[in-house]
Amino acid sequence: MNKNYIIPNEWSIIEDGFDAENVEASESLFSIGNGSMGQRANFEEDYSGKTFQGSYIGGIYYPDKTRVGWWKNGYPEYFAKVLNALNWIGIHIQINQTNFDLNTCEISNFKRELNMKGGWLSRSFNAVLPSGEEIEVATKRFISVKYNETGAIQYSIKAVNFSGEITFSPYLDAGIENEDSNYNEYFWETIQIIEGENQGCILSKTLKTEFHVGTSMRVSFAMDNQEVQPRQEIAIQEKSLTYFYKLSVLKGETATIYKYGSYVSSLNYKNEELIDAAINNVSKAKEIGFETLLKEQIKSWNEIWHTADIVIDGDVKAQQGIRFNIFQLNQTYMGTDARLNIGPKGFTGEKYGGSTYWDTEAYCIPFYMATKDASVAKNLLLYRYNQLGKAIENAEKLGFKNGAALYPMVTMNGEECHNEWEITFEEIHRNGAMVYGIYNYVNFTQDFEYIAKNGLEVMIAIARFWHQRANYSAAKDQYVILGVTGPNEYENNINNNFYTNYLAKWCIEYTVECLNKVKHEFVEDFERIVEKTNLTAEETYKWLEVADNMYFPFDEEKNVFLQQDGFLDKEIIPVAQLPKSERPINQKWSWDRILRSCYIKQADVLQGMFLFENKFSPEEIERHFDFYEPITVHESSLSPCIHSILASSIDRIPKAYEQYLRTARLDLDDYNHEVHEGCHITSMAGTWMAVVQGFGGMRVWEDGILNFNPQIPKEWKSYSFTINFRGTIIKVYKSQKDCKFFNESEKEISLFVNNKKISIPSNKLVTV
Amino acid sequence: MNKNYIIPNEWSIIEDGFDAENVEASESLFSIGNGSMGQRANFEEDYSGKTFQGSYIGGIYYPDKTRVGWWKNGYPEYFAKVLNALNWIGIHIQINQTNFDLNTCEISNFKRELNMKGGWLSRSFNAVLPSGEEIEVATKRFISVKYNETGAIQYSIKAVNFSGEITFSPYLDAGIENEDSNYNEYFWETIQIIEGENQGCILSKTLKTEFHVGTSMRVSFAMDNQEVQPRQEIAIQEKSLTYFYKLSVLKGETATIYKYGSYVSSLNYKNEELIDAAINNVSKAKEIGFETLLKEQIKSWNEIWHTADIVIDGDVKAQQGIRFNIFQLNQTYMGTDARLNIGPKGFTGEKYGGSTYWDTEAYCIPFYMATKDASVAKNLLLYRYNQLGKAIENAEKLGFKNGAALYPMVTMNGEECHNEWEITFEEIHRNGAMVYGIYNYVNFTQDFEYIAKNGLEVMIAIARFWHQRANYSAAKDQYVILGVTGPNEYENNINNNFYTNYLAKWCIEYTVECLNKVKHEFVEDFERIVEKTNLTAEETYKWLEVADNMYFPFDEEKNVFLQQDGFLDKEIIPVAQLPKSERPINQKWSWDRILRSCYIKQADVLQGMFLFENKFSPEEIERHFDFYEPITVHESSLSPCIHSILASSIDRIPKAYEQYLRTARLDLDDYNHEVHEGCHITSMAGTWMAVVQGFGGMRVWEDGILNFNPQIPKEWKSYSFTINFRGTIIKVYKSQKDCKFFNESEKEISLFVNNKKISIPSNKLVTV
Repeated sequence: MNKNYIIPNEWSIIEDGFDAENVEASESLFSIGNGSMGQRANFEEDYSGKTFQGSYIGGIYYPDKTRVGWWKNGYPEYFAKVLNALNWIGIHIQINQTNFDLNTCEISNFKRELNMKGGWLSRSFNAVLPSGEEIEVATKRFISVKYNETGAIQYSIKAVNFSGEITFSPYLDAGIENEDSNYNEYFWETIQIIEGENQGCILSKTLKTEFHVGTSMRVSFAMDNQEVQPRQEIAIQEKSLTYFYKLSVLKGETATIYKYGSYVSSLNYKNEELIDAAINNVSKAKEIGFETLLKEQIKSWNEIWHTADIVIDGDVKAQQGIRFNIFQLNQTYMGTDARLNIGPKGFTGEKYGGSTYWDTEAYCIPFYMATKDASVAKNLLLYRYNQLGKAIENAEKLGFKNGAALYPMVTMNGEECHNEWEITFEEIHRNGAMVYGIYNYVNFTQDFEYIAKNGLEVMIAIARFWHQRANYSAAKDQYVILGVTGPNEYENNINNNFYTNYLAKWCIEYTVECLNKVKHEFVEDFERIVEKTNLTAEETYKWLEVADNMYFPFDEEKNVFLQQDGFLDKEIIPVAQLPKSERPINQKWSWDRILRSCYIKQADVLQGMFLFENKFSPEEIERHFDFYEPITVHESSLSPCIHSILASSIDRIPKAYEQYLRTARLDLDDYNHEVHEGCHITSMAGTWMAVVQGFGGMRVWEDGILNFNPQIPKEWKSYSFTINFRGTIIKVYKSQKDCKFFNESEKEISLFVNNKKISIPSNKLVTV
Repeated sequence: MNKNYIIPNEWSIIEDGFDAENVEASESLFSIGNGSMGQRANFEEDYSGKTFQGSYIGGIYYPDKTRVGWWKNGYPEYFAKVLNALNWIGIHIQINQTNFDLNTCEISNFKRELNMKGGWLSRSFNAVLPSGEEIEVATKRFISVKYNETGAIQYSIKAVNFSGEITFSPYLDAGIENEDSNYNEYFWETIQIIEGENQGCILSKTLKTEFHVGTSMRVSFAMDNQEVQPRQEIAIQEKSLTYFYKLSVLKGETATIYKYGSYVSSLNYKNEELIDAAINNVSKAKEIGFETLLKEQIKSWNEIWHTADIVIDGDVKAQQGIRFNIFQLNQTYMGTDARLNIGPKGFTGEKYGGSTYWDTEAYCIPFYMATKDASVAKNLLLYRYNQLGKAIENAEKLGFKNGAALYPMVTMNGEECHNEWEITFEEIHRNGAMVYGIYNYVNFTQDFEYIAKNGLEVMIAIARFWHQRANYSAAKDQYVILGVTGPNEYENNINNNFYTNYLAKWCIEYTVECLNKVKHEFVEDFERIVEKTNLTAEETYKWLEVADNMYFPFDEEKNVFLQQDGFLDKEIIPVAQLPKSERPINQKWSWDRILRSCYIKQADVLQGMFLFENKFSPEEIERHFDFYEPITVHESSLSPCIHSILASSIDRIPKAYEQYLRTARLDLDDYNHEVHEGCHITSMAGTWMAVVQGFGGMRVWEDGILNFNPQIPKEWKSYSFTINFRGTIIKVYKSQKDCKFFNESEKEISLFVNNKKISIPSNKLVTV
């Protein structure tokens, strides 16, 4: 695979020239989606080279039977996987009866562009077929943001050196398998195939979960931009529907097919309505027409960019990187449906088959919260609220009682579907992230009512978990939490992980604090919750006994909290002294060697200090940064952003920039040699944080105050970002020279810059 | 499955009455073997009920592709499995054209007997076929100890209520699969099928490993004990060879088929010799005849029992239990071939597909050493010596250097084939057992030359491993061993496991001690080894630096060594206080809960005190026993025997007896509901130790002195055992009243009883 083949550009991802080695990587990078569905940038025409076909519908999953080497008690029987759905983009093409397959052609002028400003994907190239015909192809494709069940393709072929016949055979293919299927099972059943004039539909259902999905297509044609209607022939096979259209072309003429596709599912319709709904969507799309749909698409994306864009001046690769991240985050999740969430690969691949990790609460909420309406972040919280029952069941399976909840490590529908004991059962800090997400949201939005109506129930269940999960150590005369895995997964089954213990203590304290507030301010809710949960004051005292006496490993001499008990028994050798040939250690070392080394995969103690920055002095943060940063290998995509933000907060901008670079173009430059499997969506939110919270120094303290402390790497001329703070759109510009704030709202606002209060009148720009 | 259906009997395992529920358990319990090959007690005739067909050849294995949920660096790609081999015992039977299938008959007078004294298996029963014919069946089968590639069957059918036709169709079946195949793959390829007059052969090879195996059969017939020769018909199919013989019977007559079978393999022959060798074996067997073979078989077993038997008077179930264990150990391993070893299930099942665990060194060597010639234990040591190169390669894969060796957790040919990181990479104490095995052997036999010729190379490689695996802890100013799993597998990835650290220190010290001795007493060997290993005095000083400064977790207040760092952070609740409904915890609790509990699966600190009893005072042992015994759940079959021996050593005979009962009839009474998968062979050696070393108090101290301290549980009238001590056969009798020693050898011997020296003249009985 080639690296660094993406052409730098401010608003587009561009591939120039065709290289079969890049096809799978580009399929990931050029993915398109609208938060409800998405697809890899597969070619519409046949391609016999290496390709990874993928099209995904949010919320449609399949519980694949678990595969393990050695079964451990408590493993879930199934691993819910995002399902590779029916292919609606496909168009077989024949030129004078020769099948057109890019893999067998001589290709020139190949260019692929993902236009992020407008949310569309295009390709253009010349191809000479083995039979000698040369064609010039231009395609454009998008998944509509406005009509979120619909996508559209424009596919034009110009006959360069021949007159003859072009056959377009648009099809729907239900014969789709998941690449990551554990037992090579087929996950779909075809129920009905409906043919029609220029349109058709396949009704399918998923096995086991019985999601019903209607997949439809509608086609139309043009010759040199004049609509034409060639004769249609039909082939129905067991799992596919194909139409054939022959168009005669003269040399120099261009034949175009428009293909509209749609997914509708039983998440949103009754089963019996699906065929009509699917057909209706594509008919409507045809009616509106490709050009109008595209204009609407550009408009939709303009609106998204208005509050989400980050402009970096003087560094086009950085500009492209940050926009790519923001673009993919929006393609993955738009926030309108509380049943959906943010999969680590979004709609760009299948790996980590579950949809939701703690990434959402720890990394993604800040982005969605600050670039969109508050309802979006709230939907992410409601997703977990709606799964509370399953989290309680999950904890019960592991021996917890009394309504204690353990949220799953990976989930689709609230059930755990991860099966690696040291993670599934032990990476329990994720439970703390659930509460932190609520705290973060309420802090940013001041929507405390959410806690009274929903959040508190989650918090109580989690406080109960921590209370039961900790145990009293007679040896320490304190409470300990044994046998955990922290965010740093290069340590397993450790005792007293600082991050986990800290979160546990904080969760209990914050829950009790909120309980008291709800008791006084939302009396009815309080009564409802107490009745529902059987909570008593005595129980909360027991929680507090644990929180008040929580043990934290600390080294007096070094004056730092230790990541876990016994950490200083390790040999501490800075990463800088590790030979390059030994890295990344997750590829070069056996697992046991990684575990007993001092090397940290991703921020752990520092992750805690990032989340609770205001509980630690700058000197403490600096001391811990200096202890842990040199031994952190950042072999998780979620790590460098946190280190970058902390480095910014202690005024180490060169370090912050170094770490920022590791995250901003992770996929575009394919650092980890794995972009062909999909993009790292959730870490993209970390990149956004590294700019806004890192360089921009944005904080919302617990007293509700918004503060900025903008700094700028010397490599940039300027940068700007926008946030939506409680309905007010604030644009922040930072250059090497100064810093400006623009208030887009109708009323004056106050905020703090470097802890000094400033006021910004409505629609005014203030320079600091 | 029924429990406790085995009829108590001093010399036989007996099943009385047919119950389909017991078939698979009985197939395990009634297994027969001769150390070179063995088989489950499957029926010869067809059986359409639940059955687990199994026949195994020592040393013939297949590397099955590893299956894991999540790949960890360092996992082996293959998991070598003992191979389920061709079926040679099968005889299809028709009575007047009706197929005889025990599962469809009315059965009465069913009796199955495994005669341990003579090493044969028999069945007798009456069966009424669905078509009404009643037959009386009597079978006898054994795997010859003397002709160790050959087995024999006598199968008689009496026509009880009819005159008619009995068709015997003896066959060889190569269409065999392993029940534990990871990918349902077929492991054998049939090369050639040879038919002949009353005899035939299938030549097969294993895929990948390309072991060639010839499987042959030879049949003969009798009517009412008169040899007859019915006409033979032949059917050859792709993977089987079947002969058909029709015998006319009158009511009351008995038709008998004798079937001789043989396995020969490329371990012992050239590939092109296999067919002849296989045919030759069965021809010879036919010539000798069933009755003579059986007499020889009984004689062979008499010789085995002469030095291996334990007699328990006054407790027939205990008597049956201990003999069953001794019998199965001998069926599994006879000690004549250094390429073979002792699989945890022997030839009775497939689970734990590899052949060799640390069980051999830690549990089995004492049994074979004391009941057989010294060459047998030496062969077990040579097995590891011959695999030293692979153990060094294995360590290299995990990042070790300079000829350090890590012996595999599970192996067939020296390559690791286990894939559970916390075991494969971390249960490294097994390396110490390799050295302990050598120490134990040399101590018992005084064959120090073995160390000079072979053992020392192994010891050096292991000392190098420990030296590299330990690291200096600045915090402790001592050496620590991080990230291990001890014998107690209910703790994973712990730091400073007492047992592991102790073994590591001891291994280094013992190696240096032996090095010095070899240097002075075996100068040539010393030079050879130094040249081969590049060992320098400086290197040994570095080892000793680690050994001298090894850290051991210790609690001052409780005055006990701790199983690992942080052990006292756990809640210590005695097993006795655990509700029965929560046990066994490995079935009732999720894995994380087990890990963070205080419960011990199998002796760990106590295992260390058992191995190095003379390094600890009786008070120390007692104190540790009192701390650890109450929290040990003994959910490993290898645990109770060690606790039993230690309890005996601190004069707690009731406790010792309680623990002994848990091990002696583990399979016969199917404590763990899993005997249908096979018997627990290696723990049977622990049962033997519990009598000889436990109640009998046999020790061989480092000064070479043999000591006994015989005690007796109040439940027994008396017991006796025999040991082969450096060529002298000593019989020990212990009754409630006194204790007697008989010296079977030609010269007087001295030994110690309760640390007092006694002398026993040749062929004399001395009462103490």
